[in-house]
Amino acid sequence: MSDPISLAEALSAIRQGQLDPVALTEQCLSRISRYEDRVRAWVVVDREAALAQARDRAVEVAGSAPPGPLCGIPLGIKDIVDVEGLPTRAGSPLRASVPARRDAPLVARLRRAGAIILGKTVTTEFAYVDPPPTRNPWDPALGHTPGGSSSGSAVAVALGMCLGAVGTQTGGSLIRPASYCGVAALKPTFGRIDLDGVVPVAHHLDHAGVIARSARDLELLIRVLVDLGEEPQAQPTPPPRLGVPEDFFLSRADEAVRSVTRAALARLADCGASMEAVALLPGFDELGECHRRIMAVEAAAVHRGSFPEHRAGYGPKLAALLDEGLSTLAVDYAAALAHQREFCRRIDPWLHRFDAMLMPATETTAPATLETTGPADFQRPWSYAGVPAMTIPCGLAADGMPAGLQLVGPRNGEAGLLRVAQWCERSLDFRHLPPLWSDG
Amino acid sequence: MSDPISLAEALSAIRQGQLDPVALTEQCLSRISRYEDRVRAWVVVDREAALAQARDRAVEVAGSAPPGPLCGIPLGIKDIVDVEGLPTRAGSPLRASVPARRDAPLVARLRRAGAIILGKTVTTEFAYVDPPPTRNPWDPALGHTPGGSSSGSAVAVALGMCLGAVGTQTGGSLIRPASYCGVAALKPTFGRIDLDGVVPVAHHLDHAGVIARSARDLELLIRVLVDLGEEPQAQPTPPPRLGVPEDFFLSRADEAVRSVTRAALARLADCGASMEAVALLPGFDELGECHRRIMAVEAAAVHRGSFPEHRAGYGPKLAALLDEGLSTLAVDYAAALAHQREFCRRIDPWLHRFDAMLMPATETTAPATLETTGPADFQRPWSYAGVPAMTIPCGLAADGMPAGLQLVGPRNGEAGLLRVAQWCERSLDFRHLPPLWSDG
Repeated sequence: MSDPISLAEALSAIRQGQLDPVALTEQCLSRISRYEDRVRAWVVVDREAALAQARDRAVEVAGSAPPGPLCGIPLGIKDIVDVEGLPTRAGSPLRASVPARRDAPLVARLRRAGAIILGKTVTTEFAYVDPPPTRNPWDPALGHTPGGSSSGSAVAVALGMCLGAVGTQTGGSLIRPASYCGVAALKPTFGRIDLDGVVPVAHHLDHAGVIARSARDLELLIRVLVDLGEEPQAQPTPPPRLGVPEDFFLSRADEAVRSVTRAALARLADCGASMEAVALLPGFDELGECHRRIMAVEAAAVHRGSFPEHRAGYGPKLAALLDEGLSTLAVDYAAALAHQREFCRRIDPWLHRFDAMLMPATETTAPATLETTGPADFQRPWSYAGVPAMTIPCGLAADGMPAGLQLVGPRNGEAGLLRVAQWCERSLDFRHLPPLWSDG
Repeated sequence: MSDPISLAEALSAIRQGQLDPVALTEQCLSRISRYEDRVRAWVVVDREAALAQARDRAVEVAGSAPPGPLCGIPLGIKDIVDVEGLPTRAGSPLRASVPARRDAPLVARLRRAGAIILGKTVTTEFAYVDPPPTRNPWDPALGHTPGGSSSGSAVAVALGMCLGAVGTQTGGSLIRPASYCGVAALKPTFGRIDLDGVVPVAHHLDHAGVIARSARDLELLIRVLVDLGEEPQAQPTPPPRLGVPEDFFLSRADEAVRSVTRAALARLADCGASMEAVALLPGFDELGECHRRIMAVEAAAVHRGSFPEHRAGYGPKLAALLDEGLSTLAVDYAAALAHQREFCRRIDPWLHRFDAMLMPATETTAPATLETTGPADFQRPWSYAGVPAMTIPCGLAADGMPAGLQLVGPRNGEAGLLRVAQWCERSLDFRHLPPLWSDG
């Protein structure tokens, strides 16, 4: 597999009997073997179980019943999500090695749809910001962060170790690593994916979501997890009406990202998209502080039984967050929740004016360091507001690293957002692979 | 109006041109004049505005367009809900006397439906538990509490000063005063009535609701505020399947209430209702403490700007609550919210086993004191869980005071709950009026 196969292509080939799920799984496992030592995307790969699932799927495809909507597609699952038979380590030395007794409901849905679970991908410690061992495959020297916290999921997809992956986002943990690694991600509306069996970070901010190589592939994954209604007929999507909140996102991006983004916007406009600069709605200025307060308190509530006693087992950034949460007054936390509710209330009419809001996914490309997973400022507002957000790769910056466009839509507007993203994707026609893709 | 006219009867008579909205409004105003000095149910009665509304409704009835679903029905509005042109005092000396600039959306709905807003009814201070000046009309000596915090709304309906009223409930503030005053009340599912324009007590617990003389009358009111779907065809309701959580509610009620409740249950069983004793679901034991913590913190968040400076302007019980809320740690509040979410999640299957859960509305009849509005233990669980709860009067206890049955249904199950309550109401056939009714 030196040329990448998309999830959509693989699915179609499997259904037509042109691709054997076992062969596809072996290809993925072979890519994992080839690159894993260098990029550290996986916590555990369950080769035997994966091949057994693939053989079952092969039998299914040969049978008379219609195969599931993800039949034979190899996936990775972020290691804060329970997969039956594997421990959920959550990137922490404090987690017990007891295997999960059952799949999280979201994993069970993927499995019932025919997906093959290859194993667990690396997460930052408890999905916060202390850096993981994972490396970004776009830098030949492997000195760039892949972003986080869904670091392993983004890298695994970027290198074709799997065709899609599950991640989670509390601030920017899906959109940022996907953008840094040149792949696509979707964080759906708050509450639309059941978080049972997922290690919590912060109740009012946590989302599960998916990473894949394209918006089309994301749609195939998300339709298994969220009821989006009937798939639209294959008729041409009209050019979208896009809002561009320049103030915040373009002016705060660095010159490299601004330049790639401007080129992408020009291309979309050439293809017929209408664009309008929009002002930000009130509340953006206090959002960062309120988001942090909610996250600190809710994370502290989760860890208060273990943290005081096992402080040394926590990373320095997470420990600082938990200290902050433990000492916060309830009225301050309640005020932050009230700010969030009000922001959520006001954002819907703001978003409904356009088919999507469009902006860079990150303010810089992946920083050339392993000491940080990068800032969440560009992704956090949409986690806070609970509205669907996506990224698709849109170009390479001067440093050779990929940049992502971020698309944001109204609450429960995933289906429309995916249509817009696919229109943009076709218009941009970005085709680049990380240098590591065929190295080695 | 020495015999009471029900809201349903009044509506029907108005529509048939047999009752003039102006005459009905004058009757209500006349009853207010007659009893208000003794019972203190109203903060302000806007006679001129009420009569002007009544004249408009009379014109409407005479016209060709179909009148609204509450055309000509005089109502009282608890004085924590905004009514355009009247100040919202919330039972506090600290509230400004500036008139509200617009109706709360829930009031606007009632008004659009043709209701006549007579004025504002007495609430306890900020809808908490410091006793109001209102008296219970069932005690000829006027020494019994009417309950609270929707004290004025319950008494006004009990004395025919209005045919229905709006109240709110955070713990037991609709069900308890209605039950103590021998009338009916409905607190719908959390979130189903917009609380814009309502002075908040506690965000995660506040509900608006309605008080009237019967379940039939409540249905006419609530259909204007909540979309319950089509009104069912007038076909006989089959005898309901009722769950009776005896442990908690019957065993904790005093002998007087137990005796009235047992008689009512026997009557319902005679009429064909099936009944099954049910165990309580886990979480009841911690519920009181979590409810108090949530209420304390959220009330403190509302009042933190004013309370430290104007402490003397707060009642002693509310001041104690706010002190508690201000010093609570966020992680403890977050734990209480998590308990509430888990309780909400578990209660739905518990409630879905029956058409309704049935229990006494209060543990005693109205206490013979004006020093308390009574305990909320029997009403609080359903505010905490956010599920619909109703009370209908079911009998007089040995002390001559009324007792109420409480019916609880599954989330968003108001329509079914109202059918069960009307079946019970017809079977019980309770017809008693407070001694003050025709005392002149």
